[in-house]
Amino acid sequence: MDRLHELKKPAEIISKMMEKDAFSNWLGLKVLSIEKGSCSISCRIKDIMLNGFSIAHGGIAYSIADTTLAFAANSYGYQSFSIETSISHLHKVQPNDILKASSSEIHRGKKTGVYQVNITNQNDMLIAVFKGTVYISKIPW
Amino acid sequence: MDRLHELKKPAEIISKMMEKDAFSNWLGLKVLSIEKGSCSISCRIKDIMLNGFSIAHGGIAYSIADTTLAFAANSYGYQSFSIETSISHLHKVQPNDILKASSSEIHRGKKTGVYQVNITNQNDMLIAVFKGTVYISKIPW
Amino acid sequence: MDRLHELKKPAEIISKMMEKDAFSNWLGLKVLSIEKGSCSISCRIKDIMLNGFSIAHGGIAYSIADTTLAFAANSYGYQSFSIETSISHLHKVQPNDILKASSSEIHRGKKTGVYQVNITNQNDMLIAVFKGTVYISKIPW
Amino acid sequence: MDRLHELKKPAEIISKMMEKDAFSNWLGLKVLSIEKGSCSISCRIKDIMLNGFSIAHGGIAYSIADTTLAFAANSYGYQSFSIETSISHLHKVQPNDILKASSSEIHRGKKTGVYQVNITNQNDMLIAVFKGTVYISKIPW
Repeated sequence: MDRLHELKKPAEIISKMMEKDAFSNWLGLKVLSIEKGSCSISCRIKDIMLNGFSIAHGGIAYSIADTTLAFAANSYGYQSFSIETSISHLHKVQPNDILKASSSEIHRGKKTGVYQVNITNQNDMLIAVFKGTVYISKIPW
Repeated sequence: MDRLHELKKPAEIISKMMEKDAFSNWLGLKVLSIEKGSCSISCRIKDIMLNGFSIAHGGIAYSIADTTLAFAANSYGYQSFSIETSISHLHKVQPNDILKASSSEIHRGKKTGVYQVNITNQNDMLIAVFKGTVYISKIPW
Repeated sequence: MDRLHELKKPAEIISKMMEKDAFSNWLGLKVLSIEKGSCSISCRIKDIMLNGFSIAHGGIAYSIADTTLAFAANSYGYQSFSIETSISHLHKVQPNDILKASSSEIHRGKKTGVYQVNITNQNDMLIAVFKGTVYISKIPW
Repeated sequence: MDRLHELKKPAEIISKMMEKDAFSNWLGLKVLSIEKGSCSISCRIKDIMLNGFSIAHGGIAYSIADTTLAFAANSYGYQSFSIETSISHLHKVQPNDILKASSSEIHRGKKTGVYQVNITNQNDMLIAVFKGTVYISKIPW
């Protein structure tokens, strides 16, 4: 039997990851789409997510992007781990904003991959850009 | 009256910021020390903070570091906002780990500042390094 | 007289910058296009640009991207300075490769801007992605 | 025969790398010290290294740091390649400044490593901080 056909499908892997992912569930993340190397996720900003300036804490946008990265990178069937990430915060995120994070695959080599995640709000304003480098293990999901 | 003496003291500012910071309170962050340009914070990892690999979600270490950055940068008395940040995840963070984030001021200019935040666990193992660039406004706390 | 009309035009500013830019001239950079907030530049890789692995030194792709960032950010007429930059090296760059760097403006606020620069080779392969944050001064060109 | 004893020594590897590294030689880089995981390098700023603001081009500090990273990471005996790097430019670098780049090893795992490089000038002023992530191959020098 072909080794590749044994690998789980993106939706199956992400369903498994999401089920166990307590923090992403706490954030109320909803997976809008998932394909090999690509994922998009939405999140509504609640009061518990605000910081001392009464806007969303920087960690919220980061966390949404990091989950999006993880799902995009793991979707091929091999466990992948984020090793280096950066995020530019461009606009303030307000309570009740609905954020949408969409990944694009910049590079996928044998051992490492690079993904960009753009986060927009309900007015299609870009509020943050995130870039993540992952290590791709040989461990299948 | 001297303008500088009107500015609030670090502990006063951070107490005010922390009081309003719903997400940092949800994380259970404790401020261990605060001085001008320097802050250290601790956090115990709870089950609700885990991801699909049953380790702490990358957004948790980021969020702790981002709060530490915000407190260090705002401690001088002027409101400061994070514009660009990066984090390297070095070791897995387990449930019940007690993390400690400590900032050091790499640079403080008139308009921008750069801070590094090292995060260690209860065994003094470095689990993440974070670097953040802030914009320093002229708005006093 | 309208203040905006006094500002120099992109081509005029970049011609002035390029003329004085000894290192970009040494690299043999050629400006392919320049508009407000956008620039594209080409460069042929010479033997003097190679490192100990006989491929282009990482500093070469970075330098091309940094000049592209500087030209894009300064094109509006106000002097702008790079404060934080990152680059992912995706594929090896060989001698005689012809690189093309193209910027896109992710964000332009009053004080800071964020630009992405993609670098491709003569086969349209993406060899590096660069992101730069600039501080925008009030000093006109 | 013990596999580890077959590996080349740091000084031997770096001498081999430096000999072939045309661009680092063009920059006039001098290796001040090299040990496993640690390297320090100096460079004098020449007029050919300046940009359109008559200060050192940002690519110069980056290139010095990138060579320092490469030497520190390769010193263990296995070929290592930079995959993601960032640099914060803190102060202007003037003609004839003598820069010193010193690496510190933040993390060294089996497959990836993280190194920080601080660059100071002749007045011990920190002019840039650089962070680099490398992929560690199994190819011995």
